[in-house]
Amino acid sequence: MIVIKIGGTTGVNLAAVTRDIAAHVQEGQRLIVVHGGSGETNAISTQLGHPPQFVTSPSGFTSRYTDRTTLEIFAMVTAGKINTLLVEQLQRLGVNALGLSGVDGGLMTAKRKDAIRIIDSATGKQRILRDDYTGKIEKVNSGLLQLLLEAGYTPVVAPLAISPEGEALNVDADRAAAMVAGAVAADQLILLSNVPGLLRAFPDESSLIHRIARDSLEQSLSFAEGRMKKKVLGASEALALGVRQVIFADGRVEAPLAGALAGHGTVIE
Amino acid sequence: MIVIKIGGTTGVNLAAVTRDIAAHVQEGQRLIVVHGGSGETNAISTQLGHPPQFVTSPSGFTSRYTDRTTLEIFAMVTAGKINTLLVEQLQRLGVNALGLSGVDGGLMTAKRKDAIRIIDSATGKQRILRDDYTGKIEKVNSGLLQLLLEAGYTPVVAPLAISPEGEALNVDADRAAAMVAGAVAADQLILLSNVPGLLRAFPDESSLIHRIARDSLEQSLSFAEGRMKKKVLGASEALALGVRQVIFADGRVEAPLAGALAGHGTVIE
Repeated sequence: MIVIKIGGTTGVNLAAVTRDIAAHVQEGQRLIVVHGGSGETNAISTQLGHPPQFVTSPSGFTSRYTDRTTLEIFAMVTAGKINTLLVEQLQRLGVNALGLSGVDGGLMTAKRKDAIRIIDSATGKQRILRDDYTGKIEKVNSGLLQLLLEAGYTPVVAPLAISPEGEALNVDADRAAAMVAGAVAADQLILLSNVPGLLRAFPDESSLIHRIARDSLEQSLSFAEGRMKKKVLGASEALALGVRQVIFADGRVEAPLAGALAGHGTVIE
Repeated sequence: MIVIKIGGTTGVNLAAVTRDIAAHVQEGQRLIVVHGGSGETNAISTQLGHPPQFVTSPSGFTSRYTDRTTLEIFAMVTAGKINTLLVEQLQRLGVNALGLSGVDGGLMTAKRKDAIRIIDSATGKQRILRDDYTGKIEKVNSGLLQLLLEAGYTPVVAPLAISPEGEALNVDADRAAAMVAGAVAADQLILLSNVPGLLRAFPDESSLIHRIARDSLEQSLSFAEGRMKKKVLGASEALALGVRQVIFADGRVEAPLAGALAGHGTVIE
């Protein structure tokens, strides 16, 4: 079983990725696709007069501030547009893809971070932000994924979750992919983006780190820039849940999945 | 088995409908929910600078002109927003709802009406419109619905379908509900909207027609105004597919589902 996370819309060669997914599914490989959608959510939020806002945690992680309006736009874009178009494209290639968000069938349950500590960008001081609909995934309904896979469907998952109180929440797609991979005991978790993998000296692509031993993953956090920080965290979570290999790979190439499986990229195990 | 179609956002008491659905599911009733979303698609299309356009067929049916941009907005709003919020609300009420559009798992296959004959509103003459992504449903994957129902999920279906060529298509939600009801051999198809049923003299609610025999359904078309025409067509299709009863009922009341099942509304059988 392989879980593949497709980065947002920028940089990743979606036509090549979907073709490569289709080729692997047709060879009998079981696959689950998880996708993001931050970039497109930003664009559509702005068009709808509700531009995105970002907050930074004291430890330096940046995330979207998700008020209820933003949550609904995020659901619309990720579960409605990106997910549907990805499923459409896979269906066209002969894959019986089936789109779900984590809200559907309680696929992903998350704890709502209803009070998050942030650094105020104006004053540089810490303050508490409330009314945020962001969550940290605590449980994946692997039974639902297995039910669909057994019946021949390829699940395509949008990064939303549901809280025990029944609130839809925005979740990080890399970490969602990690939790899904852990829940189904995937052999590989492949995180595709618009870089060849983890770079020792970002953005110098010749500084690609080819292999990381599981034990030294924490030290690698120091090389990780921006979004890559969450991928490294996701990798660590997936390995802790029993996933054999996590691969950060290039989503811009002709056969991104085959490339990743052949060891091109950063392999963590 | 009951298939319930919830009209667009206007007029229907969504809180009451979802509470009533939850009550029936908790009593062990198997339910499939189908919803629309035209009203909200119009609002968001306009906000996104792509206002809706409508066309009228020579036989007097009005439908949305769905170019590719409109299709993507329609998917976003129906499958992303309306569907997700409906599933969220049902989850909150303890129903393990699971949202799908007809694209997912090939749930609804439709023939694309790629050339439709319309009346030009400026000249009053007939002309052919191309590039329309609207479809007529030909097949419902009832196996997928049964798989989910058996496993305890309540499917919530957005009105999109997929063509054999792999194109996502906008489909009429009333007729989608009819096809779904036929495919699962539902006992009842309940179409909720913001009127008490079929009215002999629209909009006079005291002119409600309580019962229509299946044989005289065609004559009833003459009473049907606007959207109600498609509901009557849907009813006819559902009965032809073996559905026992079709009920047009009021979605504005406190217990709309119980009301419909008690025979309030227009019962066709």
